[in-house]
Amino acid sequence: MNEFKAFTQKHRAILEEVMCQEVQDRTEVATLCESMLYSLKAGGKRFRPMLFLATCESIGVRLSKKHYQLAAALEMVHTYSLIHDDLPAMDNDDLRRGIPTNHVVFGEAMAILAGDGLLSLAFELTAEVSENAQIVVLLAKCCGVGENGMVAGQVLDIEGEGKTLPLAELQNIHAKKTGGLIRYAIEAALLSAHKKSECLVEFAKFLGISFQIRDDILDITQSTEELGKTAGKDIKMAKSTYPQLLGLEGAKKALGESLIKAENCLSQAEKEFPEGNFTTLYSLLKEF
Amino acid sequence: MNEFKAFTQKHRAILEEVMCQEVQDRTEVATLCESMLYSLKAGGKRFRPMLFLATCESIGVRLSKKHYQLAAALEMVHTYSLIHDDLPAMDNDDLRRGIPTNHVVFGEAMAILAGDGLLSLAFELTAEVSENAQIVVLLAKCCGVGENGMVAGQVLDIEGEGKTLPLAELQNIHAKKTGGLIRYAIEAALLSAHKKSECLVEFAKFLGISFQIRDDILDITQSTEELGKTAGKDIKMAKSTYPQLLGLEGAKKALGESLIKAENCLSQAEKEFPEGNFTTLYSLLKEF
Repeated sequence: MNEFKAFTQKHRAILEEVMCQEVQDRTEVATLCESMLYSLKAGGKRFRPMLFLATCESIGVRLSKKHYQLAAALEMVHTYSLIHDDLPAMDNDDLRRGIPTNHVVFGEAMAILAGDGLLSLAFELTAEVSENAQIVVLLAKCCGVGENGMVAGQVLDIEGEGKTLPLAELQNIHAKKTGGLIRYAIEAALLSAHKKSECLVEFAKFLGISFQIRDDILDITQSTEELGKTAGKDIKMAKSTYPQLLGLEGAKKALGESLIKAENCLSQAEKEFPEGNFTTLYSLLKEF
Repeated sequence: MNEFKAFTQKHRAILEEVMCQEVQDRTEVATLCESMLYSLKAGGKRFRPMLFLATCESIGVRLSKKHYQLAAALEMVHTYSLIHDDLPAMDNDDLRRGIPTNHVVFGEAMAILAGDGLLSLAFELTAEVSENAQIVVLLAKCCGVGENGMVAGQVLDIEGEGKTLPLAELQNIHAKKTGGLIRYAIEAALLSAHKKSECLVEFAKFLGISFQIRDDILDITQSTEELGKTAGKDIKMAKSTYPQLLGLEGAKKALGESLIKAENCLSQAEKEFPEGNFTTLYSLLKEF
């Protein structure tokens, strides 16, 4: 079995248990707690938290409860962004991970507040567990309004609807919208181990790009059932995508090139961590 | 002139300049920046940031740029909460501080994202400037989903609509919804000065209660023009309020009692800070 998949299988249950426990322990209002847990428990690949945990282990860190808590906080930020993205005023989506979206079940007001709550809780947990203001700054920047910020990416994405964007602009949007949290997963692992590596940060960049190209391709090649979310949405929302700009074959080629760049970064990073083991991260690239 | 008003007049321009500068420097997308600044510049009393700054000065701290930045972050959190509260799915309000609300001007999607952005930016700034993970934990808790959390208060507030709540439950809602950030203003001042004071934290509690009772009274005694926001809203939204539970005279009496308790806490706190000067904080209580 692919090592990253095996890694996810091995750590998934602990991550989810820690995550749900933190939400239950820290949330006072029952209905709010229920709404937050609904979206957190909806599943998904847990890609970002697993990337964080796998990077920690790859650079020689022994995983402890603290790392699962930081990973859980990252998944909370991702989940908050999905809840708000799905709102009627945004992408207006009824289906996510094969089940009705948060606002369909709990109403719009609660969905907005569940998102707000998950974001606050992620910062609470990250600051408390890491005791490191630098990790908090990194998280805030990656989900924020600046150069690598998810909210900035979301705004650009909405503004780009109905327009054919140049490739560079499409990449800029994705670097922010999807790339922000992927970058955080890897940089936070480095920060919490008091290590630095430009190569791993570059790896994060190409991983993010690969991730997005694949997402764009799947949106037009898979069914709603296979995706667990509404298929063909990019076309419906008139969004620029890699297949639209480059054609399906061109997009597949771009994906291949991006994966090669990611792999090159990883093999350079490997030299910086003689005590590390990058098998799991390499295997991730074979899953695309 | 009342000392707290004079304090606000003296520090307001610097606070607002620092706040707008931070938003401009840290926000990459022009439209997002515009939407965030629109609500930040809409005015208001700047009560929370001024309370933070006044508390810093009261306990003997010399104000520096860092304090204005922390105060600005606090105002960003307050502003995010107003933007989300005003959304059609929540209180559905068109008017705030005498001008159209954010979603009326920029649309719902941008209003949601401007709120999300301001919250993230507040954490970025607080973590970066304070370099203190404890202050971040405090901020996250005060705007979060737990015991003193603003989001928890907002959920309880919505759930209480149309019901006559017992006084204890009303106080619980307000302790979270309004009390959270007031408590943060005072506790963050203590934390950033590496000081402790149970009496000042108690002061924050009674100040918050007084603040809310006054707000409830003004909602039924002042006009929309005087308030700068829709008057009579509590009745329209069928919310439990102090005047509704205690009558207008009863509410005024409760306000008086709460102010006396706040004053008692302050005079006890004064003994803990012989080098401090509490004139500004005392004067705040005379403004009610």
